Formats: sequence, C-alpha cells, structure tokens
Amino acid sequence: MSDAFDNLCAHTREIALLNSIESLLDWDARCKLPQEGNAYRTEQQAYVAKLVHEKQIDPRIGQWLEEVQGTDLSADPQSDSATVIREAQRNYDKQTKLPTELVEALTRATNDGQHAWVEARRENDFGKFLPYLETVYRLKREQADAIGYDQCRYDALLDDYEPGEKTTTVRAALEALRQELVPLLEAIQSSGKRPDRSVLTRDYHVECQEAFGLEAARAIGFEFDRGRLDVTHHPFCTEAGPDDCRITTRYDANFFNMAFFGILHEAGHGIYDQGLRKSYYGLGPGHYLSLGIHESQSRMWENQVGRSKPFWDYWYPRAQQQFDSLGDVSQEDFYFAINHVEPSLIRVEADELTYNLHIIIRFELEQALINEEIVPVDLPDAWNAKYKQYLGIEPPTDADGVMQDVHWSAGLVGYFPTYSLGNLYAAQFYHQADKELGGLDELFRRGEFLELKRWAGEKIHQRGRNLTPAELVNEVTGEPLTHSYLMEHLKSKLEPLYGI
Amino acid sequence: MSDAFDNLCAHTREIALLNSIESLLDWDARCKLPQEGNAYRTEQQAYVAKLVHEKQIDPRIGQWLEEVQGTDLSADPQSDSATVIREAQRNYDKQTKLPTELVEALTRATNDGQHAWVEARRENDFGKFLPYLETVYRLKREQADAIGYDQCRYDALLDDYEPGEKTTTVRAALEALRQELVPLLEAIQSSGKRPDRSVLTRDYHVECQEAFGLEAARAIGFEFDRGRLDVTHHPFCTEAGPDDCRITTRYDANFFNMAFFGILHEAGHGIYDQGLRKSYYGLGPGHYLSLGIHESQSRMWENQVGRSKPFWDYWYPRAQQQFDSLGDVSQEDFYFAINHVEPSLIRVEADELTYNLHIIIRFELEQALINEEIVPVDLPDAWNAKYKQYLGIEPPTDADGVMQDVHWSAGLVGYFPTYSLGNLYAAQFYHQADKELGGLDELFRRGEFLELKRWAGEKIHQRGRNLTPAELVNEVTGEPLTHSYLMEHLKSKLEPLYGI
Repeated sequence: MSDAFDNLCAHTREIALLNSIESLLDWDARCKLPQEGNAYRTEQQAYVAKLVHEKQIDPRIGQWLEEVQGTDLSADPQSDSATVIREAQRNYDKQTKLPTELVEALTRATNDGQHAWVEARRENDFGKFLPYLETVYRLKREQADAIGYDQCRYDALLDDYEPGEKTTTVRAALEALRQELVPLLEAIQSSGKRPDRSVLTRDYHVECQEAFGLEAARAIGFEFDRGRLDVTHHPFCTEAGPDDCRITTRYDANFFNMAFFGILHEAGHGIYDQGLRKSYYGLGPGHYLSLGIHESQSRMWENQVGRSKPFWDYWYPRAQQQFDSLGDVSQEDFYFAINHVEPSLIRVEADELTYNLHIIIRFELEQALINEEIVPVDLPDAWNAKYKQYLGIEPPTDADGVMQDVHWSAGLVGYFPTYSLGNLYAAQFYHQADKELGGLDELFRRGEFLELKRWAGEKIHQRGRNLTPAELVNEVTGEPLTHSYLMEHLKSKLEPLYGI
Repeated sequence: MSDAFDNLCAHTREIALLNSIESLLDWDARCKLPQEGNAYRTEQQAYVAKLVHEKQIDPRIGQWLEEVQGTDLSADPQSDSATVIREAQRNYDKQTKLPTELVEALTRATNDGQHAWVEARRENDFGKFLPYLETVYRLKREQADAIGYDQCRYDALLDDYEPGEKTTTVRAALEALRQELVPLLEAIQSSGKRPDRSVLTRDYHVECQEAFGLEAARAIGFEFDRGRLDVTHHPFCTEAGPDDCRITTRYDANFFNMAFFGILHEAGHGIYDQGLRKSYYGLGPGHYLSLGIHESQSRMWENQVGRSKPFWDYWYPRAQQQFDSLGDVSQEDFYFAINHVEPSLIRVEADELTYNLHIIIRFELEQALINEEIVPVDLPDAWNAKYKQYLGIEPPTDADGVMQDVHWSAGLVGYFPTYSLGNLYAAQFYHQADKELGGLDELFRRGEFLELKRWAGEKIHQRGRNLTPAELVNEVTGEPLTHSYLMEHLKSKLEPLYGI
C-alpha cells in the first residue's frame, strides 16, 4: 500500500470518528438531553461540524488522491481500495466544488427555511413560506450547476442521496409503478370491502408494546449488544460507532401499528448498519450504499416480512398473549386490518400502496421546480391537482398539503424518490431471497428470520459502496431495477383481501 | 477589555466545550453504551482528549498571559478577570511544566497500574500489584518535583484537587479530627446499644425507590429541566454543558440506603454545578472551586440534611406511604438505623463517622509514601496497623485492605483528603447557614429546603474560583477551617442515640 493511500484512509477515518461523535450528540439531543441543555448542545454540534468541514476540505486530500489515481489501487473499480479512493474523491469534489458563499447561503437559507416552515405550517399560510422556498430552490439549482451533470440538472441533486443513480432510470421505474398503482387503488376503493381497523386502536399498554417490539427486533436479528432502542418523537436510526447502532420509536397506548411496525422498520435500518464491514468503518467499502438501498432494508422487514401472513402465523399467538385487546380478534381480521389500503392526506401515515403515490407526487413536483417548469407560487395548486389525480382526494389546507413535509425547507431536494426506490429494491431483493433460500414463508412460520438477515448481509450489507445501486440490483437479482416485483407483492396480497 | 484577554477567554471556552463533549461520551459509556461499543468509544474519548491537550499547550496562551499579567485586569485577585487569568495561568503551567516523557510515563503507568490492580485485587495478591504501585509513586514524586512546592512535596499533588490548599493546614485539621473521633467511636462501641439495621434491608421496590429519590432530589433543588438521573454501577455526577448536569445512582431492591442517600449525595454535587455562574462556564469564575468544596455540597445534603431528624419529620410519613416495608417501623427506629456507627473494612460502605478514619489512614500513608518515609512493600503492614489503631479491626485480606481503592493505581495521590475536607467544610458551612437563616430545622420540618440551596448558591456556588478554599471558608464563616463543627454535628446526633 502506498503512503498516500494510508494517509487518505487515516484521514477519512478521522472524519468518520468526528462524525460518530456528532451522531452521539444528536442522538442524545433527541433522546436524553434535558430541555434547557439545547442551546449549548447546538454549540457543541456546530463545533464538531466545523472540525469535520475543515478536515473534509484539507488540500492534502487532493494531493493524496492525485498520487493514487491511475495506480493498481484504483484499477478494479469494485475492489476495496478503488472504492476507498472513489468515495474519497466523490466527497472531496462535493466539498470543494461548491463556492464557500454558496455553502454559507445554503446553510442560512435552510436554517431560515425550516423556521419559516414551522411557523407557516402552524398558521396554514403558504404565502409566508413562499419566499423561503423560492430562495432554497434557487440555491439548489445553483448547487446542481456548480456540481455539474451530464443529462439533467436533477441528477446532480439525486446523487447526494442515491450515488451514481440517474433521474431517467428512477423516473422510468416510478412512472411505470404509478400507472399500475392508480388502477389497483381504484379497484380496491370500488371493492366495497374494508377491514375493521378499530381492533388496532384499542388499549395497547406501552410496556407490553416495548417488550413485544424488543422481542421481534431481536428475532429478526438486530443485535442489542451492539445497539439500543429508545423513545423519541420522530423515530430514527443512527450509528455512533461500528458497534453502536441506536434505533428509536414512539409509543401510542391506543394504536398498535405505530411502535410495532416502526420498530421493525428502524431495526431493518439497524441490521443494515450492523451488517456493514467493520474493518472499513468510515470508508467506502464499509459505508451504506444509498438512502434507497438503506430504505429497502427497513421496508423489507417492515412490509415484505412484517405485514406477511407467515410472519403472523408465528407472532400472532404471541401477540394475543401479550395484548388482552387482541383476545377476541381473529388472525385473519388482524391481518386484514394491518394491510388496509386507503387514500389519505399525510405521507407518513400512509399505507404500503398509497405511500408510493405520495412520493411520486413530490418527485414529479421537485423535478419541475428544479427544471423551472413550474414556479413555487404555483406549487399548492399543482400539489392539489396531483393528489386529486392520483389519490382521488384533495387537501383541505396547505398545512396538510404542500407544507406537510420538512424536506424542501431543509434543502433536501432529490431525497423523496429514495423512499419509493427503497420499496422497489425491497420487493426485488425479497423475491430473489425467497427464490435462493427455497421459500421464506416456511421459515417465518417457524419463527426463523435469521436466514434472510444472513442473506441480505452477504449480498447487500457487506458490499458497501463497492458498486452503484444499479450494479448491486443487477448483481443480486440478475436484472435491472423494475417496478414489477413491488406490484406483484402488492397484488398478491391485496387482491385476495379485497376480492378483486 | 484587551484583545489578549478576549482571546484567552475564547480559547479557554473552546477547551471547555471539548471537555463537555468528553463528559457526554463518558456519561454515555457508563450509562447507555451497548457492551460491544466500548472499544470505539475509547478511541473517540482519546481523540477528544488529544484535541484538548493540543489546545491546552498552545503557546499563544503563554503570549496572551504575558500581555494581561500586571494589567488592571489582574489587579484585584478576587475579580472575575483576575480569576480568569489566574486559572488560565495555573492550567497552562500544569500542562507545560511537566516534561512530555513524564506525562507519557504517567499515562502508561496509571493505565497499566489500573489493570494490574483489578487483577491483583481479584487474586488478593499484593505482590503482583507492588511493582506497578512503586512505579506510580516514583513518577508522582517526579511530578511533584517538576511542578515545584514551597513547604512539602505533597503540596504539589494536593494542589491538583484542592487548589491553593496546603498540606500543613489539612494535616492539622484531620489530625485534630482523628484525636476526637477515635474516643467517640470507642464510646459508641462500648455503649452496648445498636439499632435494628434489618429494617433497612427489607423489600424496597426499585420503582418506588426511584420515585421517592426523584421527589427528594427535586425538593432539595436539583433542577431536572437542566439535568437528569440515570442508573450506573458506580454513581457519579458530571456536566455535559452549563444546563446539562447528569447524576446517577444504583438501586438495591433489598437495601434502602444505597440509592436514597446516594441520590441526595449526587444531587448535592449537581446543585453545586447547577449553581455555578453560567456566563463564566469553562472559565475560573464559573468553575467549581475544589474537590473538597464540591464534596462539602454533596455531604451537606446527604448527612447534615438527609440524616437529620427534621428532614425525616417531613419525609418519613411519605416514605411510609411509598414503602410497605416501613409500615411497622417507628420513625425513631428508622432514624437510629440510618445513623448507626460501626467500624468496617470498606471505605465506600462506611458510616458518617468512621468514613473519616478510613480517609485519614490513606492520607497519612500517601504522605509517608511521597516523602519516602515508608516504601510500598511495607504498605500492607502499615495499613493493617492503622486500621487496628484507629478502627479496632484488621483486614483479613489485602483485597479488602490496602487494595480496596482504585485511586493509587490511577495516580490519584492527594485526592483522598478532599473527601474528609468535604465533611469538615460541610459541617462548618451548615452551622453558618443555620445561624444566618434563623434555624433550618423548622424549615425542614415543613419540607422547605430551597432556602439552604439559595444560601449555598449565593455564598459558595457563585463564588467559583474567585478565591481559595481557605479564603472561602473564612469569607463564609468568619473563621478558618476547623474540625470542631463536624465533631459538634456528630456528637450532638450520636451521643443521644447511643446514650453516651
């Protein structure tokens, strides 16, 4: 190994260590910090962020990269050394291509934007939010132009969350998905059938929910000697070190779904993080591949596994023991209730099917904004029209419509599609795992979930960033990304339930 | 204000911010960290410690100090500006006076020493520990010589924990204390009276202990919007920011004292930290004065307040409501049980009286070692002889004798006396507060504890490091440190209980 390569690795690991400290500060702020401690915590986090930034733009990185480019170390693109180099180059470019003034302007605009969003949403006043949104989008366009792109401007932003992925590919998959989702949703709506959802909103004691959730998370393979579960308002998963993965949830004593499927979801994220190669912690080969691939792991455990019949063949008797409220509920009724599909206004509360339509609407609109095909002032109308068209409902207010998500105010443009990409990847990976492992249903009925974890670990988690998401999907499933496995998954579950 | 002074403040605050991050990493490691996360956490803590050290020896500090020394800013020694300067000078001297090789040798010796201590203690093999102990003491002598001292070598070490305090003063006070404690203990032993301690080792549900402890901590003034209480094996109090004080305790479901008096103790430390001036966080005027003064605040709430009759006049009916086990126990019997005095082997389990004899033994022995009046190989015999002489008992093993504490293996020489200094300060301060506030007993009987907190805040906490411990005692009580208030406190409580 060359000195330059070793220095590059050491320096990148130092950045990762500082980032891991920032993660702990952030986790603590969201889970444990006394109320009055917030102001100083902000100073601590800003200080660490400053240290990270100084290290990220260290010009020595550029010199080390020059020395290692074109050597044997970077020859095989999927090798660990080439991946270390490629990732370091990618990060260095992102940090150094943007003019300092633009970075500062973005920081200000997204800080101000988030504050304005909170207020405007509370007051249901889009006009108040509008100038901030205009500024954010103007700066995001400048950012895309400074970073550069081949085909379309949106590529430069998407790349922040789905490295190497192209807008055209994502658009093709999500467009095909939408064209099949809308008629399926209409058929469900017209079926006249609906489950009794009230069984899910009975008394569910928080302690029992916690015990049951912990048991399930452990069973699917989240390692609690390398992680924890805590309570927060907004659930998340974070890593404060290679053996320190922290997931969170929130409990509603009168709603079963929130905590349980939330825990499966976050545990899925956690299992991905815990499955990364520790020896490459902080470097490309030990880094999660993309937000879409990350989401595929959470969605797979939440939906493909956690909302399946065989899963509940094993867990339902246990759930009935744990919760008195389920004593008189048949497994069939419970299963229908947790799989009910119905158009609704709020993305984060949406079901497995309509969730994707919420995402597709945002994806289409943010592309239009970035390409200046629409202007922010027209956004509420465009939003409402799409909700009418795809979901058949119209938001009564902008607060429950175009202003429901924090993302745009925070400058997260290009982020939304990764949620649905996660659903597509999840279905496609799961289909392959089922084939290779000779039928997962039978394993799940026996309460055996670790085979799937092992499979995903080997095929997905341990591959790190050694290849692009598109290459990974090809490598794992033998074909490119397609919407057909998600549609197959939804149809095979929902058509019998709704008799369509 | 001069630029040099501003720069000095900003730089010192930066060090404090890094230290506060280190405190959080440490708190988390002791309270929350998943088992396997330890190795990487050690790296994170070492990294922050390295950043702190680099900042502490920054030669610009020396330049700024030169510029501000002798100016108006340092003219009045008790002013805030002079205190900032004095503390910065003190820290800079400590960091720069020691040769790098000595610092490194001490780090190695104390790391190795602690590991060896754990093993030697487990195997009850002092011989195994001996060479490590010899090395630590040799290096501590070198440290004292490098730092320098006027009167005696031990001064240079004591100063790390009790800034500005002199060995002769401490020795005089503790010697006088010992001469009165030993006969008082003998009288108690000969009285033939002893309480029924079994009432304290009944069932005490952990949830009830937690609720009761939280209520008491809140009542004496620990602010939970600026702090938290968690569970650890070794209780402690730490600050992760000016509004983020974290105390810990441990619960034994079959022993009342451990958690309850532990919580009062740590809450006392926390109240001190929360009472420091926030605007000077990280600078001398906002820094706790000394370990002895810190301990005085924990001991005052634990012993002067928490083991007093009036305290339990208010709390005992509440305790009986909370704990079924106290239903048939009279307040008098409970009060005698929590104040029982009896010689025992282990310092951390000792009662309010004999605790000081444990400390005095260590204080005498570590002075003798530093002055080379005895050598480490003779330590077990010297230890056992003193236990016989002062406490009338002899340790059956070195594990429960000379090897019971981690301090010496960790290089903490000069630390022990601060525990008893804390008891002396506590009694002397409390006597003064009682006088000035017109009788605390009556307030306590009504459940009013915040007057004492306010008094200590104004007289002690807000004074920071603007004066020495000796100056503070004089300022607050109008006389120098004396053992007589602690003796008065112990006698007035114990003589009636034991009928002596």
